This record gives sequence, structure tokens and C-alpha cells, in this order.
Amino acid sequence: MSILIKNGYVIYGENLDVIRADVYIEGNRISKVGKNLNIGADYVIDARGKVISPGFINAHTHSPMVLLRGLADDLPLMEWLQSYVWPMERKLKPEHIYWGALLGIIEMIKSGTTAFVDMYFHMEGVAKASEEAGIRAYLSYGMVDLGDEEKRNAEIKETLKLLEFIEKLDSSRIEFFFGPHAPYTCSPELLKWVREKADESKKRITIHINETKDEVKQIKEKYGKTPVEFLDELGFLKSDVTAAHGVWLTDREIEILAKKGVTIVHNPASNMKLGSGVMPLEKLLRAGVNIALGTDGAASNNNLDMIEEMKLVSLLHKVHNLNPTLADARTVFKMATQNGAKALNLDAGAIKEGALADIVVIDFNKPHLRPITNIISHIVYSANGNDVETTIIDGEIVMLDGEVLTIDEEKALDKVQKIVDELR
Amino acid sequence: MSILIKNGYVIYGENLDVIRADVYIEGNRISKVGKNLNIGADYVIDARGKVISPGFINAHTHSPMVLLRGLADDLPLMEWLQSYVWPMERKLKPEHIYWGALLGIIEMIKSGTTAFVDMYFHMEGVAKASEEAGIRAYLSYGMVDLGDEEKRNAEIKETLKLLEFIEKLDSSRIEFFFGPHAPYTCSPELLKWVREKADESKKRITIHINETKDEVKQIKEKYGKTPVEFLDELGFLKSDVTAAHGVWLTDREIEILAKKGVTIVHNPASNMKLGSGVMPLEKLLRAGVNIALGTDGAASNNNLDMIEEMKLVSLLHKVHNLNPTLADARTVFKMATQNGAKALNLDAGAIKEGALADIVVIDFNKPHLRPITNIISHIVYSANGNDVETTIIDGEIVMLDGEVLTIDEEKALDKVQKIVDELR
Repeated sequence: MSILIKNGYVIYGENLDVIRADVYIEGNRISKVGKNLNIGADYVIDARGKVISPGFINAHTHSPMVLLRGLADDLPLMEWLQSYVWPMERKLKPEHIYWGALLGIIEMIKSGTTAFVDMYFHMEGVAKASEEAGIRAYLSYGMVDLGDEEKRNAEIKETLKLLEFIEKLDSSRIEFFFGPHAPYTCSPELLKWVREKADESKKRITIHINETKDEVKQIKEKYGKTPVEFLDELGFLKSDVTAAHGVWLTDREIEILAKKGVTIVHNPASNMKLGSGVMPLEKLLRAGVNIALGTDGAASNNNLDMIEEMKLVSLLHKVHNLNPTLADARTVFKMATQNGAKALNLDAGAIKEGALADIVVIDFNKPHLRPITNIISHIVYSANGNDVETTIIDGEIVMLDGEVLTIDEEKALDKVQKIVDELR
Repeated sequence: MSILIKNGYVIYGENLDVIRADVYIEGNRISKVGKNLNIGADYVIDARGKVISPGFINAHTHSPMVLLRGLADDLPLMEWLQSYVWPMERKLKPEHIYWGALLGIIEMIKSGTTAFVDMYFHMEGVAKASEEAGIRAYLSYGMVDLGDEEKRNAEIKETLKLLEFIEKLDSSRIEFFFGPHAPYTCSPELLKWVREKADESKKRITIHINETKDEVKQIKEKYGKTPVEFLDELGFLKSDVTAAHGVWLTDREIEILAKKGVTIVHNPASNMKLGSGVMPLEKLLRAGVNIALGTDGAASNNNLDMIEEMKLVSLLHKVHNLNPTLADARTVFKMATQNGAKALNLDAGAIKEGALADIVVIDFNKPHLRPITNIISHIVYSANGNDVETTIIDGEIVMLDGEVLTIDEEKALDKVQKIVDELR
């Protein structure tokens, strides 16, 4: 298939140059970007007054957790987990996970996310939903052994089952990730197994690190070192690791992350809503650490809107440091696009000839996006996910003019409502 | 005119009880709320799967500043003001202000704001735009004399001109406010004049206070006391004062504000984006101060979306205090509705029989607002202004199914684009 998107404001290349141009897509790649392209195409999209942007990469979420959206908020962390989140999660069966993931994926597609990194359980349902919806998905089973050998073997089995399922699915858009949950929930044995298997299979790893003060304290008490030092000494940290949160980090830990080429995924909404803390973004950037962006799960956000997430990054770090020059719009935009792509070793995240066609069209014919002056500023500071009109992933139009083409949205919304009404 | 809104989830009364009901509006007031109201109406709105909410009250903004949206961001405060904001403002003529305000008002109506408090210059244009658009407006001319008597007299003249203009307009929706800019830009003489005139005319006052550390320092150096003590000793502070920001406040100042019944308007996006600081929200609430919510101007936000602003309040205070229980969804929702109404002495801000019909319908048939569990949580944490579908102000439908009925939106968008392209 070929698609010609005409007359838009194109956010071009890694440097985010805004040019008025057309974008021509052939198969799953961007073939040409230029003015007045006179090329026949199977599908022509008129983007007058609209912005052609790279799709957003949600580098850390738990998509089925939309099932828990609004279940409980504003509670102390342990009360929230023990009285609401965990009891609900214990009830979730594979069918529920499939429908939850589908709702989360519809939400992501509608708000301009073209790829996401996921960690949860019954992940085969997430793979199935991703395949049907047409989104790019990096899927991990969240392993937790708490030092128990029997549990460890069961978790390894689940992980290898998912690996096999995804290999059999043989989709160009769906990839397996190892997902050890966190240093405080995984034994050194499990973490070492993951590292070995990742090296052997050339699959990547996602993990949570240093999210709360308390978990850092636990690790220090148990191992006599900080979480990043602990992981580093196990040989765990390499450039194939995408680690979520990184809120409480020492200078030494930042140095190690930079040296090992680990990507840190910032999740400002979740860190703020749970009162976890403020990531040392400036220090990480100065050290040269690749920072991607994620929404985390809907239970702690409570949406999966990457455009809203960008504004939160900028505002959080400006106020926390009383410095309005920090986390500027262009830096944040790159976190949500090309830095995510780098973490995934994905040839997307920027619009340029030859790159994968993961593109969104944002409607600027709206009062809050006018006057059209600084397009990157408007996306980061004034837009939200509802402004995304069309989403193209891997050269396929998955949403056009606000309508998801791959999935029966109404059916999914109703089905999830029914599931949650029954489970609560 | 009468309007019947059927089958919605109604956010009822000051206690925010969510009930499935119909809302019947006669003239400019809510006449009945109940199940299956079988009443003939001039207009029937089907709200199945939708939420009927009190409209939001933007208690502090500078609506024409949408003309400066995206002009410059991420700069040190003084460089931003001196090199971008002030030079642009010097070019603004009455006609520009009219069109800017119109764009800002369209944005507010579309995102569910039914009333706003404004401070700027050439305010007659804002009054005209508000009257045409059908929004409720509380309008002040921002007075700055910097201790200069000639300037003071000119500012007083401008203020009285606006007062006369609004009295002649004789609109039930548009009200005059006195608008002394701030303690550091207004002389004691000017502030005293405002207090006398306010007492005499029974008009209310809006002012900026304690926004930045630096202005507090200036006041202390000049007068040997904090800004709130300074205002209090002038006899300026009474319950007719709505003061924006209140970021840097001492315990003594909070005590005074509570005692005098002053409303503080929180502007989290602006305080965050400009790196101004974090308001002591918990202390203010504990002292019993009425806290309303505002977006501030679009140059420092960069939108006028009160729904987004609610999420920012909650997230900011949770992370700043590392406490997820602070600024819970219901408290924040009240700030954006009934607390604003209280500040304005307006019989709105809650849906109940007899109150003014300032109501919005929010479409929950969207993936990010499902499953429908906790409606207040969904509005605060997951929704945004684009989810508002219908806006009713003073019993008139000003937006229906996303279309503004009172104003030619496309014309306004184009006109503003032309103005800004010429001015830049």
C-alpha cells in the first residue's frame, strides 16, 4: 500500500525542523518527504492546517491496568496496593487481560502512540490484542520470585511460554522482552538467568528500578549497596536494558547507567500521583543517559496519553528546580519519540526518508492550538491526546479522522464495562 | 427557553453525589433534577453514557494572551517578559484584544468553562467578546502605577471607563472587577483608592499576590513586612478579594487570609511552567481559606483547560509532599467549580434545583474514560477539555456536540492567525 499525506506541517528528522511538505509512504516505510509531491498513491490524506508528527513511543506501561482505572485513588501506597490493586489483579483471567489490553491499545492509538513497552501477566492476550489492533508492541511477562526457587522456576516457565508464543505469532510488529519486575522483587539468581538468556536470545530487557525511597532502602539493607550498583555487579546492565522510573538515584548510579548505555524511562504522572518523587532528569541528561517517556499503568496516571505526559515532564522539572529553562519542549518531545525508538532499537521516532512509517496527524484547527506559531511548543504545552486525528503504524492506517479502523471500538468499550462491573 | 438533559450521570449538589438522572432547565436556572422527568422542553439533550457536570470556573486568566501562545517558552522569567511578552503586548490594539479574547473564550467554552475572571487592558473588547459568545465574565483592567501619580490617575481613569462601559452594557453575565495588578506594582495610594471605590460601588477586586520569591523580597525591603501584612494594614483585605497565586506565603499571612475571607486562586500550570514555586495548599485548606482554580494566561500554561488544571493541582501537591493522599480528586473538583462560584458570589458551581444553569456535558464514550467506575476520578485524572461536548451558560446552549453556536469559530481562528502573523 502507498499513502500520500499532503500539505501538512511536517516535524522533520531528529532535529525536529518544521517544514510545510508532503509525506509519501510506500509499504511500511517513509519513502519521500518534500513539497508538492506529485505521486499517485492508494490513499491520500489532506493535512492542511494539521501537523504530521512522528508517533509517540510509550516506553513503559501495563496496558491491561485500564481495567483498574478509577478503582481507587489518593490513598497511601500500601493501602492502595493491598486493598484495591492486588485483590482486583488476583481476579483477572486471560480473557479479561485481552479485553483490558485492547481498551488500552485503542486509547493509545487514539492519542497518537504507535509503539509501547508492556509488562503484566497473561501477556498472550496483550500480544493477540496488539496484533489485531495493528500497534507495535514490546511485551514482557513481569517476573517476581521474591527469592523463592519454586516461584522462580514457575516465572521462568511463564516467560519462556510467552517467548515461544510471540515467536510463533511471527509478527513484524510484536517483539518479546524479558521482564524481571525489579531488584527488590527478583533474586540475584533470577536476574542472572535473565541476563544470560537475553545475551543468548538477543532479546531485550525491561525492569523497574529506584521508583520509591523505600525500595532503595530495602536493597541497601539486604545487599549493602544501591540498586544500580547491585545490578551492575551482577553484570545485568547493558544497552539492551530499558529501566522504568529511576527516581531515587545517586550520582554514582547515574554514572553507571550512562556508562552501560541503559535507557531510563521517565513516568512523571505516576511518580507524581503516587507521591514517589522527582527523577534527577537534568543530572541524567548531563551524564548522557538516554531518557524515554512512559505513562505507566492507568491505575496510577490515570490515562495513557503521551502528549499530556510530555507537558508533565516539563512542568515538573521546572517547578521542582525553580528553573523555567529546564526540560524545554524540544528535549521533552525527543524523549517521547526518538529516545523511545533508541531504547527499542527501532528505526522510527523521527520522520525521514527510509524510516518506518509510524506517523500521526494532529489537528491544529482548534482554538487551543492557535495561532500556529511554535508547533513543538503547542504539542507539548497545549495539545492533548484527543487532538490526534490519524495514526499510521508500520505503513498501515489504524485510525483515520478519529475512527479506529482495525477494531470495533464500541464493542471493546462495552465488553470492558461488563467485565469490570462483574469483577468489582 | 427550557432544556431537558436526559439519562446522564449527574454530579449533584455540593457533595458531588453521582446519580443517574435527568436535569430540567427553565430560563436561566436549574428547575428539577430527578429520574425519568416527563416534562416537555424546547430542547432535549440525550446524555446516555455522558456526565452532566457543573461548568468550570476559571478564576484567574488573561484571556487575550492566547495571542502570545507559543511565542516563547523555557526562558528565564525576565528574558521572557522583556524580550517577548512586553514587546508583543505594546503592539496590541483594541481590535487585537477583542479577537484574542474571542479565541480564548471559544477555547474556554469548548473545554467546559462557563465563567472566568480576567485581567488585561483594552478590556472593552473582552466584554464585547464575552457578551457575543455567551460566557459569564468578570472583567478587570490591570492597574499598575509603580508609585507614579500621573500614571495612577491614568490607570484610575481607565478603570472607571471600563466600569462605565460594563454598566452600560447591562448584561446579566458580565460584571466589573477592580484589578490592581499586585502589591509590588501598585502604590499604597492606588490600593487604598481601590478599597474605597470597591466598598462604595459594591464591586469586587482581583489582584496577584506572592507569586514569586523575588517580589516578596521586594515588598519586604520596601515596606518592612510581607505582602499580605502590607495589604492587611492598608485595610485592603476583605472577602470581596480574589487573589491569584499565593505561592510564597508565611504562616502568619495564611492566618490573615483565612481571617479576612480572601479567596486564593491556585494556578498550578503557570507556577510550574514559570518555575515560580509550589503554593502551600494543605496549610491554606487547613486554615479554611477558600481556594479556587485558574489557568492564568495562555503564555504561561499554554492552554485554558480547567480539566487539565485539576490534574496538575493533585499531581503537584502529591509529589511535592511525597504524599499521595493530598489534593484528592473531590477536593480539586470543588476548587474548579463551587469554590470559584463562592469567590464570585455566584449562585452556580453545583447542580441543584434553583441554581443558575451553568452546566457541561462530558462524553464518557471514550476509551480513556472507561470503564465507568469513579466519575470524579475520571474527570480529574483522565479527562481533558476536549471531552466536553455541550456547554450551557445561564440557561443558554452555547456549545452543542462540540460546535460553538454563538460564534463563527473558523472566522475567529483565521482572524487571530492573521493578526499574529502581522504582529510577529
